[in-house]
Parts: sequence; C-alpha cells; structure tokens
Amino acid sequence: MMKLYNYFRSSASFRVRIALELKGLPYQYVPVHLARGEHREAEFVALAPEGLVPLLELDDGTRLSQSMAIIEFLDETHRSPPLLPSEPLARARVRALAQIVACEIHPLNNLRVLQYLKRELGASEEAKNTWYRHWVRLGLEAFERQLAQQPPTRFCAGEAPTLADCLLVPQIFNARRFECDLSSLPRTLAAFDACMALPAFQRAQPSACPDFEP
Amino acid sequence: MMKLYNYFRSSASFRVRIALELKGLPYQYVPVHLARGEHREAEFVALAPEGLVPLLELDDGTRLSQSMAIIEFLDETHRSPPLLPSEPLARARVRALAQIVACEIHPLNNLRVLQYLKRELGASEEAKNTWYRHWVRLGLEAFERQLAQQPPTRFCAGEAPTLADCLLVPQIFNARRFECDLSSLPRTLAAFDACMALPAFQRAQPSACPDFEP
Repeated sequence: MMKLYNYFRSSASFRVRIALELKGLPYQYVPVHLARGEHREAEFVALAPEGLVPLLELDDGTRLSQSMAIIEFLDETHRSPPLLPSEPLARARVRALAQIVACEIHPLNNLRVLQYLKRELGASEEAKNTWYRHWVRLGLEAFERQLAQQPPTRFCAGEAPTLADCLLVPQIFNARRFECDLSSLPRTLAAFDACMALPAFQRAQPSACPDFEP
Repeated sequence: MMKLYNYFRSSASFRVRIALELKGLPYQYVPVHLARGEHREAEFVALAPEGLVPLLELDDGTRLSQSMAIIEFLDETHRSPPLLPSEPLARARVRALAQIVACEIHPLNNLRVLQYLKRELGASEEAKNTWYRHWVRLGLEAFERQLAQQPPTRFCAGEAPTLADCLLVPQIFNARRFECDLSSLPRTLAAFDACMALPAFQRAQPSACPDFEP
C-alpha cells in the first residue's frame, strides 16, 4: 500500500489526500508533525531530501515529492476519474488555476515563511496576518477573475473536480483560518462548496485526519 | 504568430522563452515593463486577469497564463523535442524539480514580494538581500539533493533539456544577480552550464531580449 507522509494542517498534504480519495486509492497515513519540527529530523530528511511534506512512497519504495507533481503522477497512472481534461487548452487552464494557488499564494503563507517574518524580520502578529491576507486576496481575486472568464460550471473547470479543485479547497481552509475576507469571490466559493459536498473532500479534510488537533 | 507578453528580467517569462526556443517556435515579443508597473495598467490587465507575465497569446487570440502551464501546453501541442519524459515516474521527477523552483524559491523572491518587504515591513536593503539568499539557498540545496539521488546526467534529468532545465536556468541567473553562494551545488551548476552551451538558452536570456536594460 502507498504511504503518504503528511500533516493534517499542511495544505500541500491536503491536496494529495483529496486526489487519493477522488481516485479511491487506499494509502497509509504517516504523520509528520511540522509544528514540532519532525520534518527536520534526520530520519525524515533521509527519506525526503527537501524535508517537506507531502511525500508519497509507492509500493516499491520509490518516493515522490511536490504535491502537483504527485497528483499528476496519480492521474497518469490511475486514469479514472480524470483530474485533468483531455484537450491541451483545457488542461492548460486547469493547471494555471492550480498554479495560482501553488505559485502565487501558498508559498508566501506557509509555516516556515511566517516564522521567518516573525523571527528574522521582527514582524508583529498583526503585520504577519496582514501579509497573509494580502497574498490570499491578490491570489484568490486573480483566481476568481480567471473563473469569471469561463461560463459557470459546478467545479472550477467543469462538472467534476480537477487538479484545480484539489488546490483550491485547502487554500480556502487556510484563508478561513486566518479570517480572510472572501466576500468578493462568488464563483470560487461556489466551487469550494460543490467540492465539500463530496465525501472524498470530507474524508481528506484536516479534521478527518488521524493526527488532527483542534 | 504567437505573442509572448513578457519582460526581459522576469524569470517566469525567461522559462517560457527557453521552451519556445527549444521547440523552434517563432513568436512576437511584446514587452511589459514590470519595474515601471506596466503590468498593472488597464490595457494589460484587460488581457491578463492576473496582471502577470508571461502571458502567451495564441494565433486565435486565446491567452494562457502561468509559466509551467504554458510550457506543458507547448509540449503537448508541439511534441518535438519533448520537454517531459514519456514514463510517469520520470515525468513526476522532472515536474518535482521544476516545482522546487516554481513553488519553493521564486514566489518568495519576485519583485512584488521584495517591494512588500521594504515598503510594508520596513526591511532594510540588507535584510531584503538576506531573505532573498535564504530562500535561494534552501531551495537550490534541495534541488541539488534531488539531483544527487540520480546517476549523473548532462542536464537536470537526462541527456536533453526538460521542463526542469527551463525552470532552473532563470533561477540561477537571479541567484547570481543577488550574489548568492552557489558553491555547494556542483550537479545543479553542471546542468546550468550544459544548458547555457545551447543556442536556445542563449537566445532566451535577458541580455538577448529586445527590452534588455544593462
């Protein structure tokens, strides 16, 4: 059985959990407690040269990193249900939506960056939260404008979840945790709600994880 | 002919220029001067909802954003030479390398983030440069460790350039501009040197762009 090294609150981990659940693929959940720094311990770094979760270990021991790369691998090796459309232009749109989250929002707001702001730059709690909300707002407004250029669909790109939904949902969880104003994002939130109505997304969410802490 | 809205110093633009050159695809270079804020002007935002370069406009007027999504689109629609291997596991490794740059390094070091550090958080020039070098070091060391897990190859993943090389090369240009210490990255720099020996990478570099400023 595949092993997923991950952490309930890591949104990159959450993306991969969603893909595994949508594909119906069983996996062993191996918790790595980021807030306690377990990802920096020698035992984990020996497995994961980047020292990051998620890390997916296949049956033969091969290990894969980077959440979008893992999800595309799962999609290429377990085709049903597909997480990318078949037509190149439609695939590009789905990937671009995913990359707004993965390249424009999340990297600025993950735990190690927030710690750097506080420890190295002496940012106050308020300045840190303002930073967080600034990048969430910029990124999700761009996401919303991209959705608004297409006819309405149930999910981000069509009538079934795609890679874009796997990325969006954890980002909305984070945005809500930091009390970001999401009122200008109707299409984005409609897609989020459609996702959260599905058992796969419910099973993948932080509160359903074995290492969950309230 | 395709149009590429871009900027000589934007490393995300540089990635796409490399892919276009490797594929031998002609394109019209449309400069968008980021340092003068042209990407925030109404005329450009009407084309690019994210207000970001690169933006690729196809012959039929369709516009694509996000550099990795654009490169994968070009690869799927113009197969030769391929920028991704054909085997899923090898593809996952190439994408993961690309994503170390695109998700772990570059988002923390682009112009708007550095401006935020200075203007909103009052970071000194020195603190800003320390931030820059910190994320470059963390990311490229992870990149190097990933390369070191595989047998040596001429480029990042094999004997021809891939998506990973398209992402790596602009990042090394940036790292050198900020005088980052790259001495612990032999495999990474060997791949960089192999790339820069090719005319496609030479033609795509900032100093070869029509809007280049020394």
